[in-house]
Amino acid sequence: MSVSDDVVVDFWANGFGMRVRIALEEKGIIYEYKEEDLRIAHRSKLVLEMNPVRKSVPILIHKGKPVCDSAVILEFIDETWEGDSFPRLLPEDTFERALTRFWVHFIDNNLFSTQTKFLKSKGEAKEEGKNELIADLKLLEGFLGDKLYFGGNKFGFLDIAFIPFSSMFDGYESHGNFKLEVECPKLAAWVKRCLARESVSKVLPNPVEMYELHKKWYGIE
Amino acid sequence: MSVSDDVVVDFWANGFGMRVRIALEEKGIIYEYKEEDLRIAHRSKLVLEMNPVRKSVPILIHKGKPVCDSAVILEFIDETWEGDSFPRLLPEDTFERALTRFWVHFIDNNLFSTQTKFLKSKGEAKEEGKNELIADLKLLEGFLGDKLYFGGNKFGFLDIAFIPFSSMFDGYESHGNFKLEVECPKLAAWVKRCLARESVSKVLPNPVEMYELHKKWYGIE
Repeated sequence: MSVSDDVVVDFWANGFGMRVRIALEEKGIIYEYKEEDLRIAHRSKLVLEMNPVRKSVPILIHKGKPVCDSAVILEFIDETWEGDSFPRLLPEDTFERALTRFWVHFIDNNLFSTQTKFLKSKGEAKEEGKNELIADLKLLEGFLGDKLYFGGNKFGFLDIAFIPFSSMFDGYESHGNFKLEVECPKLAAWVKRCLARESVSKVLPNPVEMYELHKKWYGIE
Repeated sequence: MSVSDDVVVDFWANGFGMRVRIALEEKGIIYEYKEEDLRIAHRSKLVLEMNPVRKSVPILIHKGKPVCDSAVILEFIDETWEGDSFPRLLPEDTFERALTRFWVHFIDNNLFSTQTKFLKSKGEAKEEGKNELIADLKLLEGFLGDKLYFGGNKFGFLDIAFIPFSSMFDGYESHGNFKLEVECPKLAAWVKRCLARESVSKVLPNPVEMYELHKKWYGIE
């Protein structure tokens, strides 16, 4: 397979895009990476052409055709590279699959906006934002429970969807003055387990650079 | 199969829940329906128990176990009742499946908030809200094109996800003083085609009652 069969268009600090790259690494797929300027006025011709509706990244271009939205791309990757040669990302059981998708929705719709609210918050609102963020993380930890990974013994779909957020955990701690290891010890241990995987460590950015960028975005001093 | 094998917990005017009921009708599944009070303070014990994380409806309780989030439930229904005896809701082709899921995300994340913004708007903001709403509908019409249904010749997943919104189309027209048939003629024809299906006509509520409820919710005079 030629390198250009699969192209990922993304921005280095985009957690949603990291999902796509981790999934491709897990499947053992070689891909070309194109860095995109995330500022709306700087959208490349490629993004406008490949994702005219949302004009957003990540985009996976597979054999010249675009697939957009990170959760949709993960499903596409799991369906495209399936069979015995590839690890399966979604669980086999239909109930487990539904639970996985439910929690991905929770991350996309709840956790992401809670994170944004927390990072934007100042003064008294920061305490409230911190408590909401920790509450969301505790819900995810509750679903993890004593399992090694979210799907059980195997690293899979929900791990891939959530682990990119961990590159902001140091930032959360600095901004909110708390320790994740104290608040969510099982989640903290899960992060360490995931980071030991090459697919994850290869893709996740430096947490210090991540927080510096978010400080700039949200005017954090 | 006993009636209580499948229970749908929902609120009559909840478009997301209508999806679940239409999908079950399409699959020919007999289910029990439980009406829920949508006001947060009036959540039933059943909802708090079955969906403790989001505390929202619709919920499909299948053999005693809950599945939550309408798009997740649709995938679950399609995977649970599969094979020759049941119509397939998602397309077979992986690219088509990805496109379907992309547009469901678009409806959930864009169209739904555009609708809310439009219905809440008053005075000059109403014109802007109307234009945004029509722009979103035109994007969906663009994807429909000259096809009979969103997936081609067969009524399927994206039709099910979108058609509940049509029960507000009369309301859109009244609130914005425009004609959908003029703005989006292909979409208007698609609505008629869908309404001719028993699964849809059985589930969709009276448009007048829908708009009356939304007028109350959004303080529309």
